[in-house]
Amino acid sequence: MNKFSRNQRITAITKTLIENPNKVINLNTFTNMFNAAKSTISEDVVIIRETLDKLSMGSIETISGAAGGIKYKYGISDEKVEEFAKNLCIILQDKQRIVPGEFLYISDIMFNPEIISTAAVILASQFKDLEVDYVVTVETKGIPLAYEVAKKLGVKLVIVRRDNKVTEGPTVSINYVSGSTKRIQTMSLSKRSICKESKCIFIDDFMKAGGTALGIINLLKEFESELIGIGVLIDDINTSKKLVNNYVSIIKFGGIDENNNPIVYPEKIRKK
Amino acid sequence: MNKFSRNQRITAITKTLIENPNKVINLNTFTNMFNAAKSTISEDVVIIRETLDKLSMGSIETISGAAGGIKYKYGISDEKVEEFAKNLCIILQDKQRIVPGEFLYISDIMFNPEIISTAAVILASQFKDLEVDYVVTVETKGIPLAYEVAKKLGVKLVIVRRDNKVTEGPTVSINYVSGSTKRIQTMSLSKRSICKESKCIFIDDFMKAGGTALGIINLLKEFESELIGIGVLIDDINTSKKLVNNYVSIIKFGGIDENNNPIVYPEKIRKK
Repeated sequence: MNKFSRNQRITAITKTLIENPNKVINLNTFTNMFNAAKSTISEDVVIIRETLDKLSMGSIETISGAAGGIKYKYGISDEKVEEFAKNLCIILQDKQRIVPGEFLYISDIMFNPEIISTAAVILASQFKDLEVDYVVTVETKGIPLAYEVAKKLGVKLVIVRRDNKVTEGPTVSINYVSGSTKRIQTMSLSKRSICKESKCIFIDDFMKAGGTALGIINLLKEFESELIGIGVLIDDINTSKKLVNNYVSIIKFGGIDENNNPIVYPEKIRKK
Repeated sequence: MNKFSRNQRITAITKTLIENPNKVINLNTFTNMFNAAKSTISEDVVIIRETLDKLSMGSIETISGAAGGIKYKYGISDEKVEEFAKNLCIILQDKQRIVPGEFLYISDIMFNPEIISTAAVILASQFKDLEVDYVVTVETKGIPLAYEVAKKLGVKLVIVRRDNKVTEGPTVSINYVSGSTKRIQTMSLSKRSICKESKCIFIDDFMKAGGTALGIINLLKEFESELIGIGVLIDDINTSKKLVNNYVSIIKFGGIDENNNPIVYPEKIRKK
């Protein structure tokens, strides 16, 4: 069996933890991988933990007991959150982004892995102390962000569809009223996608009045499940009355100014 | 300024590389982060590279010149690919997955970050030596997989829509014929989502006859762009005539057997 130096073990342990956020990894995984004693691995973990802590790159928790081990939780410093939100505002302020109807073109942002993975760290760290079973989103634009949040929380993603698909098996559909356009819309979800009595958070790209979020709350009731958190990348503050109260966002959108520029500014997210 | 030990530097460098696959990272990033000499960082990188290599966890390339630096490329061992495909087949063989019309319910798999991130490593490593500009997919089920492949290749994701959305600005739409159902369908893409003369790969969850892939080839022609690769998680081998030739898949689906069980087996992916 190959022997590994401390430096080598630290490389492999760090990689494994970063790629499996919020999952309990038993130390035996590493004692087997490196043919090393548990005490040796524990010392490696102490070094990794201290470094991540020092650089505000997340934290490592120790879970004791038979099913115990270590668990990496994503984290990000206040400065990094602020820097990210400021840079994103500069990208969003481009008047080329305005499409007829005072909408902002944001697909390139929502589908850019570099932006979305940082946004997901910021949103996931808001919910990391909750016991979340699923991250829920509605197709289509919010899917990459919701996927990344689910991954960083170590849970599964559930995608609510706009219509019934033959490949979904039996589904539950509900109608809801869009808060901004007042139009009746339908959302549907495969019956087998969520276990009863689950706790979910809803992640989306953009919130206007919150009609979709309210729809999700009602849809989850059909699954005897509960929505315990809402996170969006951009919150439209021009909508006078929001249909939901507790939600977090990263950017505020205030419409278009007299010079035809989008009004955007960073939301100050309270660190948890 | 804080001093960092080699162990600490290795922790932070590993994390940064893993989170930014296929992106050139200048060594100055690390000399600044740790207040260390370039030669010191180079020695750290040698240790990380050797470890990743030894454990088949990917590779680190050095890019010389003014814009140079180091670049992490995802990699996975043949044994891990085989193990992953075998385990996925066991999950897929469950007869509960069959929905009317001989379809397989796979949404839970396509939306499971643990499964999708490994599948994406396998697919991304097939295309890692191509110069890819975008990963393209069609909504909805393939989005998380396509997003992960894009992230691992360090490029942007493009999502083709089934209909026009008001938030997309001007779009280009084409009609295409589904290869299996022979129905005419529409796909549309925002004009601003792809630069001219781009090279793209198409990632999807499931391939029947390949009508969608053919549609993507034609849609990309409207953007004066080219499809240079196709990767799917599951390939339906019951479709006698495929409309596209070169594609990679991880699992083969051969329909339902006489005992009402799905026929699935691993595709042997040629390692690049």
